[in-house]
Amino acid sequence: MPHIDLPDGIPGIRSLFAFRPQTAAPLLALAEVLLRGESTLSRGERELIAAYVSAGNACAFCMRSHGAVADLYLDDSSLVEAVCTDLDSAPVGSKLKALLRIAGNVREGGGQVSSQDVDLARSHGASDLEIHDTVLIAAAFCMFNRYVDGLATWAPDDDASYEAMAVRLRDQGYR
Amino acid sequence: MPHIDLPDGIPGIRSLFAFRPQTAAPLLALAEVLLRGESTLSRGERELIAAYVSAGNACAFCMRSHGAVADLYLDDSSLVEAVCTDLDSAPVGSKLKALLRIAGNVREGGGQVSSQDVDLARSHGASDLEIHDTVLIAAAFCMFNRYVDGLATWAPDDDASYEAMAVRLRDQGYR
Repeated sequence: MPHIDLPDGIPGIRSLFAFRPQTAAPLLALAEVLLRGESTLSRGERELIAAYVSAGNACAFCMRSHGAVADLYLDDSSLVEAVCTDLDSAPVGSKLKALLRIAGNVREGGGQVSSQDVDLARSHGASDLEIHDTVLIAAAFCMFNRYVDGLATWAPDDDASYEAMAVRLRDQGYR
Repeated sequence: MPHIDLPDGIPGIRSLFAFRPQTAAPLLALAEVLLRGESTLSRGERELIAAYVSAGNACAFCMRSHGAVADLYLDDSSLVEAVCTDLDSAPVGSKLKALLRIAGNVREGGGQVSSQDVDLARSHGASDLEIHDTVLIAAAFCMFNRYVDGLATWAPDDDASYEAMAVRLRDQGYR
């Protein structure tokens, strides 16, 4: 049961957006620019970073919803699971793998990102903007995950709900 | 040295805002509504929550800048330090202390907030909106702290810089 009185039947973070529209607006604007705005990282890659961080934070709602969007964009229903289960052996390119390692370190704490992590990503072709956006996506999901679980929001349990959310997010975005 | 090429001489998160104005806009809008928007929590109380979380995350820039703003609003230069050093013995009211405990648990992870934590805050008069905003402030600073330190931004070392930032934030806000 949620810790505060939230509207019934609205899943996860959407119930918090309905409860507090004043904070919903900048949070949705942030998700829109970070995950869907112009970038040399594909939308699928960015949703994968979001799902990976959410899995590390054990936030089921964010992991399943962003994982489902990543599945859709990447047209591969096993990649998110592979990355979240064992990044080392997951079949992703070396640049994306290095960025995912940075994201995992950001999740543990800002001070956990080393120059070596960043140099490795750069050696595989990552730009400053890609490194920046990876750090901010990871940091933002450390917020979203805590927001969703810190207020004990309700999350659906069936895959179909997340697949429907994913189609809506892909087609309509976060605004 | 910062992990990416940031403009010289701009401290902490401001250098990231200059680097990426597209993400700066929603981040600043979020800080403005959360820390300065209409609320039954005072601006000083909200900045204190931000400083407390930032201290727990060992983010010197955020801790010192938001601590300095809290000092200004609360007109007490020892309260932030007392809260960050030992919350149990700090001279704050029971409602604020219960909210700060919730914020500390959010910092550790969304799943760390218990019904007992929330019931205690409510028994001391906290409203659902105050509990919501406390959780979101704490979650947001888990993002800001990781953003600032995950990219190794430069932070000034002298108190005067933070005091000047605090006056500007009090007088002009986050926009």
